Amino acid sequence: MTKRGIQFDTADPKHRQRIIKISEVAAELFGTKGYLETSIDDIAAAARVTKGGVYYYFKSKAEILYFICSTYVDTDMESLEQSLKRFDASIEKIKFIVFRHIEHYSMYEYSAKTLLNESYCLPTRYFKRVKSREREYLQIVKSVLSEYLGPGVKKSVITALAFSLFGLLNWIYSWYDPKKSLKPKELSNIIFQLFVNGIKAGPRS
Amino acid sequence: MTKRGIQFDTADPKHRQRIIKISEVAAELFGTKGYLETSIDDIAAAARVTKGGVYYYFKSKAEILYFICSTYVDTDMESLEQSLKRFDASIEKIKFIVFRHIEHYSMYEYSAKTLLNESYCLPTRYFKRVKSREREYLQIVKSVLSEYLGPGVKKSVITALAFSLFGLLNWIYSWYDPKKSLKPKELSNIIFQLFVNGIKAGPRS
Repeated sequence: MTKRGIQFDTADPKHRQRIIKISEVAAELFGTKGYLETSIDDIAAAARVTKGGVYYYFKSKAEILYFICSTYVDTDMESLEQSLKRFDASIEKIKFIVFRHIEHYSMYEYSAKTLLNESYCLPTRYFKRVKSREREYLQIVKSVLSEYLGPGVKKSVITALAFSLFGLLNWIYSWYDPKKSLKPKELSNIIFQLFVNGIKAGPRS
Repeated sequence: MTKRGIQFDTADPKHRQRIIKISEVAAELFGTKGYLETSIDDIAAAARVTKGGVYYYFKSKAEILYFICSTYVDTDMESLEQSLKRFDASIEKIKFIVFRHIEHYSMYEYSAKTLLNESYCLPTRYFKRVKSREREYLQIVKSVLSEYLGPGVKKSVITALAFSLFGLLNWIYSWYDPKKSLKPKELSNIIFQLFVNGIKAGPRS
């Protein structure tokens, strides 16, 4: 995982561990009760550190939010272009994007919810950086879809299809619980088949 | 349009008109800067009435939010089952749901955004009523998809497909501007074709 903009002393593994711990409990609070409704006191209590302990690692609540959002987007983006180069067929690239996106969601559910629902609370310069990474992701998806569909497809259609894929992938935050019976790989397969072949195709039993 | 739970004097058309006007400007504020970030003063100023004028029609900011959310859900639900009975083929029912959902979104964009992003701010009993109407909508969609796919499809798959359709339809709040070049009916067609036949089908130029 990488992070941008905030200078953390990552040379110290204990320091790094504390940052991760605080950001994880904060993500759970932001992702369930909301950023504005969560105080530094709440985070300190949940992380079992003092308020001063939180401020030792993060200057403000906004920096914690930025750490969560940027780390999550970076996880989605990390070496994505590199990974996609492994596949010749564009349909395999689409499959990789779907499975990877849902796998990340399932692993870091609260961070994903924080990014989707709370990133608007970020101070402008942080918000812009996160949005710019999201736009890179969108561009990659658009180019994979263009490659799959071949020439002659209107730009506005490619855009609508790319956002439709993000709709399928991101809307799961509103209903999907990876701990219940439908496993992340099953859901990935349903969404992949739906996106490529429509509802009549895909796993049915 | 109908509303539930709050008693408004709808016999008086002028009274009704003021309620609509206040709720429309409030929806624009909630849908752009957020519910928590909007004050009754902001709403009064935007609606060009006094603060007392707002309180004459609504007891609280939460009641305005409830009016917006419940009116929007009711618009989606109003006579939906009745309308669906007009069609014999279940594919026509799916098409009707897609086109109608996007048409409503395009007509009441700010109310839709308020419902999607801010309904969690509702007091519990109002929140429950809105969610219960949304569940009715989900049930209708699930039964149409069951009808389309025929017997033998696992419940968890039907649920995933129904939420996927809502993902396609609701995610548009994050990117789609009905005032730009892609018209609501074109977008409806792209999403309908994608959902039924996958990305290789559908309008491409």
